[in-house]
Amino acid sequence: MSGYVFERAVRFDEVDAALMLYYPRFLGYCHEAMEAMFAGLDGGYPRLIQQRRFGLPAVHIEVDFKSPLRYGDVARIGLDVVKTGYTSITLRYTLTQKDDGRMVAVVEHVCVATNLDAMKAIPIPKDVLALLDRYRSPA
Amino acid sequence: MSGYVFERAVRFDEVDAALMLYYPRFLGYCHEAMEAMFAGLDGGYPRLIQQRRFGLPAVHIEVDFKSPLRYGDVARIGLDVVKTGYTSITLRYTLTQKDDGRMVAVVEHVCVATNLDAMKAIPIPKDVLALLDRYRSPA
Amino acid sequence: MSGYVFERAVRFDEVDAALMLYYPRFLGYCHEAMEAMFAGLDGGYPRLIQQRRFGLPAVHIEVDFKSPLRYGDVARIGLDVVKTGYTSITLRYTLTQKDDGRMVAVVEHVCVATNLDAMKAIPIPKDVLALLDRYRSPA
Amino acid sequence: MSGYVFERAVRFDEVDAALMLYYPRFLGYCHEAMEAMFAGLDGGYPRLIQQRRFGLPAVHIEVDFKSPLRYGDVARIGLDVVKTGYTSITLRYTLTQKDDGRMVAVVEHVCVATNLDAMKAIPIPKDVLALLDRYRSPA
Repeated sequence: MSGYVFERAVRFDEVDAALMLYYPRFLGYCHEAMEAMFAGLDGGYPRLIQQRRFGLPAVHIEVDFKSPLRYGDVARIGLDVVKTGYTSITLRYTLTQKDDGRMVAVVEHVCVATNLDAMKAIPIPKDVLALLDRYRSPA
Repeated sequence: MSGYVFERAVRFDEVDAALMLYYPRFLGYCHEAMEAMFAGLDGGYPRLIQQRRFGLPAVHIEVDFKSPLRYGDVARIGLDVVKTGYTSITLRYTLTQKDDGRMVAVVEHVCVATNLDAMKAIPIPKDVLALLDRYRSPA
Repeated sequence: MSGYVFERAVRFDEVDAALMLYYPRFLGYCHEAMEAMFAGLDGGYPRLIQQRRFGLPAVHIEVDFKSPLRYGDVARIGLDVVKTGYTSITLRYTLTQKDDGRMVAVVEHVCVATNLDAMKAIPIPKDVLALLDRYRSPA
Repeated sequence: MSGYVFERAVRFDEVDAALMLYYPRFLGYCHEAMEAMFAGLDGGYPRLIQQRRFGLPAVHIEVDFKSPLRYGDVARIGLDVVKTGYTSITLRYTLTQKDDGRMVAVVEHVCVATNLDAMKAIPIPKDVLALLDRYRSPA
């Protein structure tokens, strides 16, 4: 068992006119999980972005949707660090519905360590890498 | 007859779990109408914000909600400039449903001409005032 | 001391191009506080909306904005029940920035107990009223 | 040359704290393009969803992000129908920045023709298929 876990209830305003969680919002849930994981660094993601001008723009995303979420459901998001390269990071998010455990979606997210002023890829900073190491998926 | 007019269909993802336009989004529609009006200036609202570092933070909002909007409805938003002071601007947005003409909401919005770097009120710039004059409501 | 208290960090995606919390989202924060308060009823707001077909559409909103919220800030929202009538409820939300205590905004929100199928005002149900009584502001 | 084309300015509230379009919103732009394409059917997507109880839940999404969008940019979205099966539809969205033509993102979106009451896959209705045929990508 590894990975960071984040839970999040579907809110009143997040469903669409078909009464299911609007699918782009699944990715917002994943981003919230990532932001929450980065709270493990001093100042969290806000400090990375605002003071250190370090960010993680996405370069590739793949999502398999298995079942919908509805208002009243709680998403349980397991975040695993699949791979880190010199500048790139691959994360996997496994979303289940908390109460009944059914599989909701699997998201693979490749992002790149980036200096936000130069908009250039940079090596993953040591403290970021140490945080990611805590949530590495088993080989 | 005066005022700037902006139309906007309710989107699939903008209703809530009661299948009505989520009420904070009414204010987003009003902001879109204001942004669209500012397209009358060279570079529009993006240039005001990003190059001139000029913005219009809200200081007071009042909304009367008359009837809901649903998916498939089109909001027709009439924007009137009610009053301008040295640094403050009062706008009124009248929202109706385009097809049947029923009244949806009336929003009064007071904002302040602001230098975004200093975060200080400043006199309304001449070109902004000239634009506002075009959409002034009759006394 | 009275009122329900709800805390909420400003998220990465909630600021606007001026790097301040987009003002319609203040009202979304208030709605989240209200939803959280209703978790005090069995099944919470989801059950009210979906099974009991009971909702609280807004009829009037007034907001005074005092200072901006930025990414990294945490909003502390105090929710007080100001008044209840036969069918209407007046709520007041007082938003401060958690860390430095500065005042952010005050929102007054009048909503109407509504049967969502008939879209008619109905008397406030007894259990809802009992919940509201817990958070009534001192006279 | 084929495909449906939809244009959309990045709005004030759609960037994140790094001042780039928040990446889940790219998918919202694609959904808007799809909704706009369905305006070619009587009553559009609202009628499909609300009266005919027909929807297109996503089952798979892949996105390659090439360059960011910022406030003031206009997204130009080309929508091509790549493939239709008995119940499934594969769409490709090619996002460019309108003014300078640079590539922004490519999205592949597989969705399934679904009866929203039964939540079961159904054959693609004839009028929907005829609409999709208009925007089929060249082999």
